[in-house]
Amino acid sequence: MPHANRLQALKKLMQSQDIDALLVTHPANRYYLSGFELHDGQCNESSGCLLILAGADDWLLTDARFREEALRHWPQGQVHVYGSPRVEKIADFVKALGIGELWVETHAMCAQMYLELDGMLNLRRAPRLVEDLRIVKDEGELEKLRASCALNHRVYEALRPRLVPGVTEREVAWMLEREFRDGGAEGLSFAPIVGFGPNGALPHATPAETRLEAQAPVLIDMGGRLEGYCSDQTRTWWIGDRPSDEFRRTLDLVQEAQALAIAKVAPGVSTAELHAAARDFFVRHGVADHFTHSLGHGIGLETHEAPGVGPIRPTTLRPGMVITVEPGLYYPEWGGVRWEHMVVVTEDGHEVL
Amino acid sequence: MPHANRLQALKKLMQSQDIDALLVTHPANRYYLSGFELHDGQCNESSGCLLILAGADDWLLTDARFREEALRHWPQGQVHVYGSPRVEKIADFVKALGIGELWVETHAMCAQMYLELDGMLNLRRAPRLVEDLRIVKDEGELEKLRASCALNHRVYEALRPRLVPGVTEREVAWMLEREFRDGGAEGLSFAPIVGFGPNGALPHATPAETRLEAQAPVLIDMGGRLEGYCSDQTRTWWIGDRPSDEFRRTLDLVQEAQALAIAKVAPGVSTAELHAAARDFFVRHGVADHFTHSLGHGIGLETHEAPGVGPIRPTTLRPGMVITVEPGLYYPEWGGVRWEHMVVVTEDGHEVL
Repeated sequence: MPHANRLQALKKLMQSQDIDALLVTHPANRYYLSGFELHDGQCNESSGCLLILAGADDWLLTDARFREEALRHWPQGQVHVYGSPRVEKIADFVKALGIGELWVETHAMCAQMYLELDGMLNLRRAPRLVEDLRIVKDEGELEKLRASCALNHRVYEALRPRLVPGVTEREVAWMLEREFRDGGAEGLSFAPIVGFGPNGALPHATPAETRLEAQAPVLIDMGGRLEGYCSDQTRTWWIGDRPSDEFRRTLDLVQEAQALAIAKVAPGVSTAELHAAARDFFVRHGVADHFTHSLGHGIGLETHEAPGVGPIRPTTLRPGMVITVEPGLYYPEWGGVRWEHMVVVTEDGHEVL
Repeated sequence: MPHANRLQALKKLMQSQDIDALLVTHPANRYYLSGFELHDGQCNESSGCLLILAGADDWLLTDARFREEALRHWPQGQVHVYGSPRVEKIADFVKALGIGELWVETHAMCAQMYLELDGMLNLRRAPRLVEDLRIVKDEGELEKLRASCALNHRVYEALRPRLVPGVTEREVAWMLEREFRDGGAEGLSFAPIVGFGPNGALPHATPAETRLEAQAPVLIDMGGRLEGYCSDQTRTWWIGDRPSDEFRRTLDLVQEAQALAIAKVAPGVSTAELHAAARDFFVRHGVADHFTHSLGHGIGLETHEAPGVGPIRPTTLRPGMVITVEPGLYYPEWGGVRWEHMVVVTEDGHEVL
């Protein structure tokens, strides 16, 4: 009954903040609370939303296309199929329920819908309530994240011997995607980064026709989605038997920085401390200018979710949070090294996936 | 120079409506005008936006991760890398340029960003200006749509002999995705529908573990993205040598309705007339209640874009518009039949892709 428990927890949170009615439009939040549709068809289309009521039964609102799918996840009497125009029909439905104030997820609703609703209802801007629940994973979610990350490890194993001179970045990207899918993933959780040589220094390298050379570094950052849950790992390997001194030294520094940061992961620790652990180490070795991003991010139903793991807006770690730890050093002349693991905060420390 | 021409056309449109400054946040609009990033990483993340100025040079605003990619598509002096917090930095930049009113795409900006910007700038809600340009495809776009749809045809040819009893919907979905990718597509343009037997009646059937039986209908609705441009076609086949009379009759009706609608496609015709042509035919044959959706939609950089092809908000066809024509009839007891082609409006009629 994960959904029932989550809905109960959300209602408690709503009551504590005097929020009677919340419209959940964020696809991952909707799925987390109902199991209905993790994704919308296009960024500018909606498969439906949830109307959560602190003191009454909740509603799943959707259009006729999704009716059958909705009934697989939600009690029939509480599914409402709206017609067209969508926003007006949703407003009518909310009004008919006698709801005074409707709290909305402004970070997950387009301005046009907000402005239209605002003319018809008494709108309030809700804090990120569902995200506050999602930040701590329950046992079922942790199992899925473990399985998802285990698949990520298997894909790297399958990939490693196929990184041979002559192969292109695009070919490797497609290879790894096939491995994820053949391994049961619904798809990739983000567009993979495959950077040969200097391309490894681009934080957002689109795999292209660059061919792998005989002695060169390869940076791969990839993730799949298994039963809804994302994985995200990065590896940087030297292809060939003569890694340059620079590569060797950089890899050592990155892996040591990662180990220092991971060693600190435990309940009560601030995410800013993790970032500082890696950064301070790089400062001591005179390479901090080459560490150009934050240390990591939360991961779950979305590849990037709370908590952020960087210097700003720190979060205090709690058991059940899952984060990535991914320090990197980048040198536009020859490439970059990043090494990334997923780490669960446990009752007394951490578990590396 | 497609981007230069498009920017010129947009500026003319802006001037005619007294719009001095437009912030383009819609990913497909951004890509259409610049070639920069067709997609954002997640629905709630942005790769950047364009600031289009009716009477001055335009800007590409992005964050540090995308700087190199931005410079491949936009003049260096007009790329601005904003820091954090993003929205505040964008507002600062706009203010520093002395812009009085900033027009925004409320249909492609989250309410939170809109409300934040609204506190810092004089915001105005822009009409869908870039969409007004995108609705008519130029020659380069038509070439890409032709190539994209040709690949879709080849994938159906490769798929047909592999639809044998015992295969699952999910396996077929993965087969067709591999065919698109091996054929050069960047990926699918939407989650494919593969419905065996009664599942063909579900307008939004997620491919699952259902196995194909010996004498049964199969509905496949699929599309890939090639050089950015989407394809979208549906076929419904009977697998086996003894199609039921019901299936045969339904397929005949659907194909005839489609032919009637396509025959009407020409400049000056309303999209509502196309829908009516199919619907009236179904009414005459007493099956109109089983035609439960609109006839089609525009297609280009997005699978679903303007113009809609249905009874409401009709559009008058112009040369260069590209639409789908996809009548369907659905019977929950045994399945559904849909048949879909992509059609270009030409100077004197139409071209079926």
